[in-house]
Amino acid sequence: MAQEKKQVEQITDMEADFAQWYTDVCRKAELIDYTSVKGMFIYRPYGYAIWENIQHGLDAEFKKTGHENVYLPVLIPESLLQKEKDHVEGFAPECAWVTMGGADKLEERLCVRPTSETLFCEHYAHIIHSWRDLPKKYNQWCSVLRWEKTSRPFLRHREFLWQEGHTMHATAEEAREETMQMLNIYADFCENVLAMPVIRGQKTDKEKFNGAEETYTIECMMHDRKALQAGTSHYFGDGFAKAFDITFTGKDNLPHNPHQTSWGVSTRLIGGIIMTHGDNNGLVLPPRIAPIQVVIIPVAQHKAGVLEANRAVMDRLQAAGFRVKMDDSDNSAGWKFAEYEMKGVPLRLELGPKDMEKNQCVLVRRDSGEKTFVSLDGIEETVAAMLDSIHDGLYARAKKNLDEHTYPAFSLAEAKAIQEEKGGFIKTMWCGSEECEIRMKEEAGMTSRCVPFAQEKLGDVCAVCGKPAHKMIYWGVAY
Amino acid sequence: MAQEKKQVEQITDMEADFAQWYTDVCRKAELIDYTSVKGMFIYRPYGYAIWENIQHGLDAEFKKTGHENVYLPVLIPESLLQKEKDHVEGFAPECAWVTMGGADKLEERLCVRPTSETLFCEHYAHIIHSWRDLPKKYNQWCSVLRWEKTSRPFLRHREFLWQEGHTMHATAEEAREETMQMLNIYADFCENVLAMPVIRGQKTDKEKFNGAEETYTIECMMHDRKALQAGTSHYFGDGFAKAFDITFTGKDNLPHNPHQTSWGVSTRLIGGIIMTHGDNNGLVLPPRIAPIQVVIIPVAQHKAGVLEANRAVMDRLQAAGFRVKMDDSDNSAGWKFAEYEMKGVPLRLELGPKDMEKNQCVLVRRDSGEKTFVSLDGIEETVAAMLDSIHDGLYARAKKNLDEHTYPAFSLAEAKAIQEEKGGFIKTMWCGSEECEIRMKEEAGMTSRCVPFAQEKLGDVCAVCGKPAHKMIYWGVAY
Repeated sequence: MAQEKKQVEQITDMEADFAQWYTDVCRKAELIDYTSVKGMFIYRPYGYAIWENIQHGLDAEFKKTGHENVYLPVLIPESLLQKEKDHVEGFAPECAWVTMGGADKLEERLCVRPTSETLFCEHYAHIIHSWRDLPKKYNQWCSVLRWEKTSRPFLRHREFLWQEGHTMHATAEEAREETMQMLNIYADFCENVLAMPVIRGQKTDKEKFNGAEETYTIECMMHDRKALQAGTSHYFGDGFAKAFDITFTGKDNLPHNPHQTSWGVSTRLIGGIIMTHGDNNGLVLPPRIAPIQVVIIPVAQHKAGVLEANRAVMDRLQAAGFRVKMDDSDNSAGWKFAEYEMKGVPLRLELGPKDMEKNQCVLVRRDSGEKTFVSLDGIEETVAAMLDSIHDGLYARAKKNLDEHTYPAFSLAEAKAIQEEKGGFIKTMWCGSEECEIRMKEEAGMTSRCVPFAQEKLGDVCAVCGKPAHKMIYWGVAY
Repeated sequence: MAQEKKQVEQITDMEADFAQWYTDVCRKAELIDYTSVKGMFIYRPYGYAIWENIQHGLDAEFKKTGHENVYLPVLIPESLLQKEKDHVEGFAPECAWVTMGGADKLEERLCVRPTSETLFCEHYAHIIHSWRDLPKKYNQWCSVLRWEKTSRPFLRHREFLWQEGHTMHATAEEAREETMQMLNIYADFCENVLAMPVIRGQKTDKEKFNGAEETYTIECMMHDRKALQAGTSHYFGDGFAKAFDITFTGKDNLPHNPHQTSWGVSTRLIGGIIMTHGDNNGLVLPPRIAPIQVVIIPVAQHKAGVLEANRAVMDRLQAAGFRVKMDDSDNSAGWKFAEYEMKGVPLRLELGPKDMEKNQCVLVRRDSGEKTFVSLDGIEETVAAMLDSIHDGLYARAKKNLDEHTYPAFSLAEAKAIQEEKGGFIKTMWCGSEECEIRMKEEAGMTSRCVPFAQEKLGDVCAVCGKPAHKMIYWGVAY
């Protein structure tokens, strides 16, 4: 019990200091470790296992929709990066540069990839010649570097893991369809697997990706009512294709430039999971992504037959496809309860001598703490139903947070007052000018999150400048 | 037919110029592309898919034996790399150095990881305190950089994909067991999945890994009778643990240093597959690793019902778990045959109107070209048996090559003469001195491959110096 107490003491109250609570969870749940390189983190086994589950889920969706995985070099020559002007302007300030190979100074310095549009374009120029070569739909799982000044586990690393899809299409329509398809794959994955409700929309020109024509985004609301951009999908038109001289002969026998997309999500999704679902006992993992879905804690495990009975339940659940761990270590039950609560395991199963007599076990939900005695007959179906119910409950709670903290506003002053008092997303009409975005940032501390696909008419003038406005936009304070 | 001819013409005869044949296969089978960064390659979808299959197979073995995946930073501070003297001496000449972050010169330069022993040790020092924290058995899938002067697809890249296992154990015995367990996992995988027979043995001190106490290896013989080191497993003792101050309190309540291992295989395995099994029609892939195991080519596909019949067979084979592709493009049958031969697809299935009448199809083996008419009844079992038979055939052919080109020799002159005339592995007695290894290299162009576990007594004196010798060693010309 001493250990249990210690562990619970070590985590900051989330209402008192959300940022410290977040860091505590990342460390105490053993998701991450710090290194001697500033801003670079170690993804520990439990953190990496969450990422592997995200990878497997998304990779299957990518392959189902005809994408293929590739791997391109980690280093990009400076001259290649400079081929597209907007792109290099955006990324150059954040590049880490390799200038020495062995003992030799390099003739041209090489950037550790911050993103790979330029390398994909170089490759596509090699392999795209005819309309028969299109579409090309490639994806890459890798790490990228951004030389940021500040850092925070999962949310802002100098190196982070992600996937980047890069596709080339014969027509703008097809590329636009791809852009939207991938955004929807991300959105569905967030909602159906990570239990994170999203707002789907388009970024403003100010906030779009460097070099893109259009950027689409999914925006989530964290427990502290700040926004997290969870994934983006970009439509490039043929700008990069022209800069990189990618040309194909069409069915009309004439030369054309293909139309391009790129899209990505990263390990910041893990930060989103933590901040959407976590509580004062630690991490709360959505069941479909949890490395351990059910932890089995034998009760009075020294008594005859207890371990065997627990092992039998574990075998049954594993055979049914669940990710199960049994902890029969000599730690106290109290320590174990706290440990797996901290790690956010969705279900705890307890089974002792008395339960054995009654052919039952105890299931304890991580989300609500609710304790139920259930029969061992059909335990597979019971566990499946309860995991689904936990998923639904987490989603509903997050959706409630999102809905209850999204406020309409009709002036900059009102928007500012709501943000200061309540936080959350503020929705207003917007004239479309960058000036109004800058004012909102400077005066109310909020950036535009997106122009949501689901539009509402909140009048017909911009909340910032009062000029005519036809679009509703979401504002927020973002991670 | 014009296209078919063109494709076949483009590949060099392997007996005429093996190196050029190899490069031709890498490019024509679309495994790899060159980039504007010298020595860095693109893993194209077909090449990457082979690596993904290797990953899935090995990762399952790693997890079954209790290993966990992690991800550590891509950059290593120079001071960290320097903590273990032998290690840094080996790697510093091959490091690529990051010296700039954004516009700022870094205070300390950072090496793009050539291998991650030092980072793992830094992390282990954080997390290992008690005997309860041991063993730690971590693995990482990532890319590493070695600033080599020359390069060759899959065999020598400045950046290549690999996995690196790093483990810590309470005792030397346990660490030695781990070293051997992982070597055997690699060996079994090479033989049972890649159909590549291996020689298991220990590297000499001259050839062992920088900083290791002992290095174990699996060595394969390529079609041109040169050697390929396919995987290594290292025992480190507690040298790194001392250098990095990793200490745990034992059950005896005293401080101890843990004992360490590391082990790795890389995408050079793909080079090994190509050079072991390939022929003058291109790649020949072992069925258990082939991205496409069966390609279905509809015959007279414009005729009524043909496509439907082919699709039905595809559905049946996919449902049975095979990786199947149907090519119903408008390319000629001849073009398709050459294309999938070049890509090394183990089995081609042809099905046309006449076959439909007889409830049969044609199966053509890539390894032998053998053509068989088989009933569609039980096609799943027939395909399974034939893929197994192809695996066995490829293995037997490679084993025959290895056995027939391994020669005993009793003097340096004899070893040299055999290597020049016939190539292959030369086995001799060896006194254990580095001088004799250097002489063998200088005078016969061969390096020691390993002291094999399966020892034979070929006399009792060293073939190089004539002094007493108790060990038999393998020599060869290596990739």
